Amino acid sequence: MNYKKINLYELTENEGNEIFLTGWVHGIRGSNKVQFLQIRNSGRIIQAVADRQTIGEEEFEKVKSLKQETSIVIEGKLVKSEKSEIGFEIQVNSFSVVGSSDGYPITPKEHGPDFLHDHRHLWLRSKRQLSILAIRNELSFAIRKFFYENHYVLIDTPILTGSIGESAGSLFSTEYFDLGNAYLAQTGQLYLETAIFAHNNVYCFGPTFRAEKSKTRRHLTEFWMLEAESANIGNEENIDFQDKFIRTILAEVISKSVSHLKVLERDPEKLSGYIQKPFKRINYSEAISILQDKKETIEWGEDINAERENILTSHFESAVFIRNYPKSIKAFYMKENPEDKRTVLCADLIAPEGVGEIIGGSEREENYESIVQRLNEAGLPVDSYSWYLDLRKYGSVPHSGFGLGLERLVAWVCGLPHVRECIPFPRLMGRLFP
Amino acid sequence: MNYKKINLYELTENEGNEIFLTGWVHGIRGSNKVQFLQIRNSGRIIQAVADRQTIGEEEFEKVKSLKQETSIVIEGKLVKSEKSEIGFEIQVNSFSVVGSSDGYPITPKEHGPDFLHDHRHLWLRSKRQLSILAIRNELSFAIRKFFYENHYVLIDTPILTGSIGESAGSLFSTEYFDLGNAYLAQTGQLYLETAIFAHNNVYCFGPTFRAEKSKTRRHLTEFWMLEAESANIGNEENIDFQDKFIRTILAEVISKSVSHLKVLERDPEKLSGYIQKPFKRINYSEAISILQDKKETIEWGEDINAERENILTSHFESAVFIRNYPKSIKAFYMKENPEDKRTVLCADLIAPEGVGEIIGGSEREENYESIVQRLNEAGLPVDSYSWYLDLRKYGSVPHSGFGLGLERLVAWVCGLPHVRECIPFPRLMGRLFP
Repeated sequence: MNYKKINLYELTENEGNEIFLTGWVHGIRGSNKVQFLQIRNSGRIIQAVADRQTIGEEEFEKVKSLKQETSIVIEGKLVKSEKSEIGFEIQVNSFSVVGSSDGYPITPKEHGPDFLHDHRHLWLRSKRQLSILAIRNELSFAIRKFFYENHYVLIDTPILTGSIGESAGSLFSTEYFDLGNAYLAQTGQLYLETAIFAHNNVYCFGPTFRAEKSKTRRHLTEFWMLEAESANIGNEENIDFQDKFIRTILAEVISKSVSHLKVLERDPEKLSGYIQKPFKRINYSEAISILQDKKETIEWGEDINAERENILTSHFESAVFIRNYPKSIKAFYMKENPEDKRTVLCADLIAPEGVGEIIGGSEREENYESIVQRLNEAGLPVDSYSWYLDLRKYGSVPHSGFGLGLERLVAWVCGLPHVRECIPFPRLMGRLFP
Repeated sequence: MNYKKINLYELTENEGNEIFLTGWVHGIRGSNKVQFLQIRNSGRIIQAVADRQTIGEEEFEKVKSLKQETSIVIEGKLVKSEKSEIGFEIQVNSFSVVGSSDGYPITPKEHGPDFLHDHRHLWLRSKRQLSILAIRNELSFAIRKFFYENHYVLIDTPILTGSIGESAGSLFSTEYFDLGNAYLAQTGQLYLETAIFAHNNVYCFGPTFRAEKSKTRRHLTEFWMLEAESANIGNEENIDFQDKFIRTILAEVISKSVSHLKVLERDPEKLSGYIQKPFKRINYSEAISILQDKKETIEWGEDINAERENILTSHFESAVFIRNYPKSIKAFYMKENPEDKRTVLCADLIAPEGVGEIIGGSEREENYESIVQRLNEAGLPVDSYSWYLDLRKYGSVPHSGFGLGLERLVAWVCGLPHVRECIPFPRLMGRLFP
């Protein structure tokens, strides 16, 4: 017979065909008459039914002895199956083993998170992990597509930097030939700012590093960050754009990921509910009042921690932009609010369900004298910002931008409590392996 | 009058409209009657014509005194212009200055490369640089789109790694909390290999680091690399896929970048000529014979240097895949050629015009015993590859993959002799600034 080689992302067009599929034995169960193989291919799982009568005594015994994660080739017929998650199953005619598997460490029983992370190179094959990284793939591409289609030019900002971005205390450093130390960038923003003068609207999307000694469920030492910067837009337009951005990509990703969300027991309707209308916007001062009304002991001027962010999103039952934080707790480059000089023109987007801040953005200070003053106030070395200051000398313009943490967005979409499963190989304070 | 705010990527639909444009004075020339301003916006340049009679004596004198890189707002009428590169020009009604500029260091006169690279944060605004990074933007997106549409799942591989990829001699290292040293990855391949067992076809595309003490026009210490890995395909299929990949994305990028190629004096027809049919494929042994016929003193077993790669592409007037190099000069993970055990199943794609190797790929050794032997032969520590070896224990499959250096591809498309202009902020042995 002439079998057609397929992958599991091309089922509908192959209904009724005699097909040839390579895959791994994800699971196996059955009786002495019929065995049900769960076969994994391309991040999806299909049931293959091996019937003793069809494949014969000898082959059937071989099927029964197949071990988890054996790689095999199956020939058979692809048929519709109402009961199947994937909508189809395979009636096996014959099979052969490609690579054996003995003693696969991740069994269907429960394992602790340390064990699973130690075996991350294998854990990637597990059903929930397949769906999480498939959703990450969709999100990453939707983000790039959004910026490309909105005429934002990709500017890959450097990782190895001599200058320092936000704060010096939490940087990884490496010896750089005869030039002293280089630091791993914790933001591409300052570099993006140089490029708006060339391309107006620019973005970067790459790995970012923070050597913070913090062990929370929202922090990684290496994570992926989308940053965008736009000439001639102010803080409110910047928020408008972020709102459109997040709601556009989420709508697209939800519609493409229904089966994966199901695996994760994440209700697509609930997620869609969050993006039906623009996210709520409040000022920092209003946020403090709400928290005080709820008997939180917080004073104006203090930062809003994760727990209190959660109180606010629960209050509004939505993601919330919190605008215009106190100047003293934000970065030097944020523009002072002309209507309240204690604050800056900025906004954080707080996602609900305990995910917390997923975006931080602001209008940038474009005046030369003002930004030098802010650098001095922050105790930062003005000299090492010489090239950044040049931007305020030669045709400065009002501009704004923001940064989005990809893993937190993945966590929100997937409904996960910890970002460590939201990246293929998480790096934490205590984890550099595998 | 009601002016419509536009950007320079939306001209055709605004023909004849009264428009409002923000931009920078890229250049200025003219007479006492009329001034021609070159205005830059969104990586493009348009001519704005300021006529003394229309805008009045006083305003006209202000126009004449505008300095390079002043940011301005122009109101006027957008009209077709046959002579203009961009096809349109603006008849100025009025203008105002947003940010002044005095003593902009990059003038229309010639500057040396060191001066320009020291001012990279400003040099980005220059006409050729606008086009190079616009083409990089198109290439990056075309690459991602190709893989997304071909059902490859993005697996962002880690930069901070405890294990070592290709060779230990040229790695940047950093202290990683209490866990000793972490190394900046020079390949994501080993991590990608783990993910084919989950998703079959995977890719990564991110910054990559090599601390090599080499000063050539083809090397950066930080560069962007696309890597792809596929289960169940062998060396020839891998080459087929690369050939399709490169020719597909180049066709797309050339068609979208005609005006930028013109700026760079790069003939789109010449570029298109290279991708009309599949790239030539020869074996390493054949390459050596050709070189020897051309009186090069090279012996079988030696690597083919840049100069000789160029002899080969000139010989074929095309990009060339060179297959099956000697085992001794290639990485441990490449699969031995069963038909000639002195060689491995691999291929490098050599681009013409002196660009050189843009892709390196191979079939991977999937047998556990064989790869342990190869690690030992290469003098690599088998222990630190434990997780990589696990992949050969649990359902191993034949598989292949490759890596593409983005900056070299940009250099080929743009017709540039040096990769350092092909990335926004190049990092070289002697350069970490700006």
